[in-house]
Amino acid sequence: MSLFKDPNAFADPEDSQLVKENKQFIPDPLTYSYTERDVILYNLGVGATEKELKWTFEGDDEFQALPTFGVIPQFPCMAAVPLDWLPNFNPAKLLHGEQYLNIKAPIPTSGELVNEARILEVLDKGKAAAVTMIVETRDKVSGKLIFENQSTVFIRGAGGFGGKRAGSDRAAATATNAPPKRAPDAVVEEKTTENQAALYRLSGDSNPLHILPEFAAIGGFDKPILHGLCSMGIAGKHVLKTYGPYKDIKVRFAGVVYPGETIVTEMWKEGTKVIFSAKVKERNAVALAAAAVTLVDPSAKAKL
Amino acid sequence: MSLFKDPNAFADPEDSQLVKENKQFIPDPLTYSYTERDVILYNLGVGATEKELKWTFEGDDEFQALPTFGVIPQFPCMAAVPLDWLPNFNPAKLLHGEQYLNIKAPIPTSGELVNEARILEVLDKGKAAAVTMIVETRDKVSGKLIFENQSTVFIRGAGGFGGKRAGSDRAAATATNAPPKRAPDAVVEEKTTENQAALYRLSGDSNPLHILPEFAAIGGFDKPILHGLCSMGIAGKHVLKTYGPYKDIKVRFAGVVYPGETIVTEMWKEGTKVIFSAKVKERNAVALAAAAVTLVDPSAKAKL
Repeated sequence: MSLFKDPNAFADPEDSQLVKENKQFIPDPLTYSYTERDVILYNLGVGATEKELKWTFEGDDEFQALPTFGVIPQFPCMAAVPLDWLPNFNPAKLLHGEQYLNIKAPIPTSGELVNEARILEVLDKGKAAAVTMIVETRDKVSGKLIFENQSTVFIRGAGGFGGKRAGSDRAAATATNAPPKRAPDAVVEEKTTENQAALYRLSGDSNPLHILPEFAAIGGFDKPILHGLCSMGIAGKHVLKTYGPYKDIKVRFAGVVYPGETIVTEMWKEGTKVIFSAKVKERNAVALAAAAVTLVDPSAKAKL
Repeated sequence: MSLFKDPNAFADPEDSQLVKENKQFIPDPLTYSYTERDVILYNLGVGATEKELKWTFEGDDEFQALPTFGVIPQFPCMAAVPLDWLPNFNPAKLLHGEQYLNIKAPIPTSGELVNEARILEVLDKGKAAAVTMIVETRDKVSGKLIFENQSTVFIRGAGGFGGKRAGSDRAAATATNAPPKRAPDAVVEEKTTENQAALYRLSGDSNPLHILPEFAAIGGFDKPILHGLCSMGIAGKHVLKTYGPYKDIKVRFAGVVYPGETIVTEMWKEGTKVIFSAKVKERNAVALAAAAVTLVDPSAKAKL
């Protein structure tokens, strides 16, 4: 039996009764259908350019999705996992905290993918709840596993339900990936565009937080913010251009980026991994932390 | 019987036998299905911004397609009309010459539209053939006419077949719309982006001329050129922002725009019409000429 179809697959003896009961819920699988046009739209959304034909022209011999496209097919499925059983749950208080994407097979440039989601871990952080969801994305026809995603969300005000406080090792989304003390081995800078979020949201996350000033204000922001997963896609592209393909990528969303700001990705190669961080140049503020990829070719040297 | 289903509907006694026979061909209607996402993608493709929420946010109370979206649903149908019966026909020698769009009803922001195309007029220009196609776009459910488009294409090297030389008055696509001698009543400038064509092509015209340098070189261009219909969309947006809604729009594609260049739209209000032209600022070159719209409200004053 698939772990995803076994109600007790992610049971944890340390879980409280509330968590135990609700972790067992098995949502219906969700199909994501896409074409090469969706791949190009995603790639443009994370700043691929008209000069980078393998990312923006379907007729290119090497036409491909950027690896972080892997967060797109699973998004609606992940977002549909019910969390309203948490005490004082308020969707406006939900923040995307961390993301882990494992790329299990070459990414098709079009097709139908089936997504199955489960709750992996629920932590009681006192004032907040931290929930890590896991989604498996498979080719609809072959059944082949293409992506595994782990998404950790924090829901402010929803803690204090007597759950466990510390995470187990199994949630890859919460790896620490501390950068070494030395200066970065490579740095890539990219100015985002004023319409970056308006474009990125067409890839499936249409939360008004990213375009509607009044909604952003309610969330406590001066103006609409860039999607965290868009920043991840931009920094992930910088790592790809510098060190080549990777098997997985993990980031913590440490601070916001406003569309139009410049993302500076600092990279440190450490064995099979490239540890990285992303900062906003204009405000010298951290956007992505505790971030790393595992390289396909660990002997890769920086290209830039 | 619909003119579009009558083989002789567009017969012309002055046509040569070759033209007579081939004008009778009735292509199958083509359905165009779209969502609000496609409307936003088009609007972004002609430079609508994240600040212009009625064009880029589906949740806005006034969410709408820009009027020039009307050229999009008909495009595949127009492009499918066979022209290979012309002597020495070569698709690489085909140039989009003129476009006329008549907006017959409010534009749905999603739905299914059915497109029917016919050849309206074929002119023998000696060295070139000039073919004007007409496409009617109707709501699939109600049958209501939404758009009429006339597209004139020039095929270099395909003339000399003994056809008529001068056009009749019925092709609205070839109206002259000469600007008055006075200085323009209003001017709007907009810098396009380097990736403008890469983005615009996702709305349905994926001709490699607009993204692949090698292909542009074969066509005789230094680099990939912006779609003529994209320039029309940008200039049409300038007219809309200045004078408000219009019922129809006509342009002649007089010169190319390279992505990244600045389009300067000069406008003259003349009765119910706004005559306009679009120039490339960096090269002081004409891009759109013989261009005009017919205003919904002829008493409209320039807003800029």
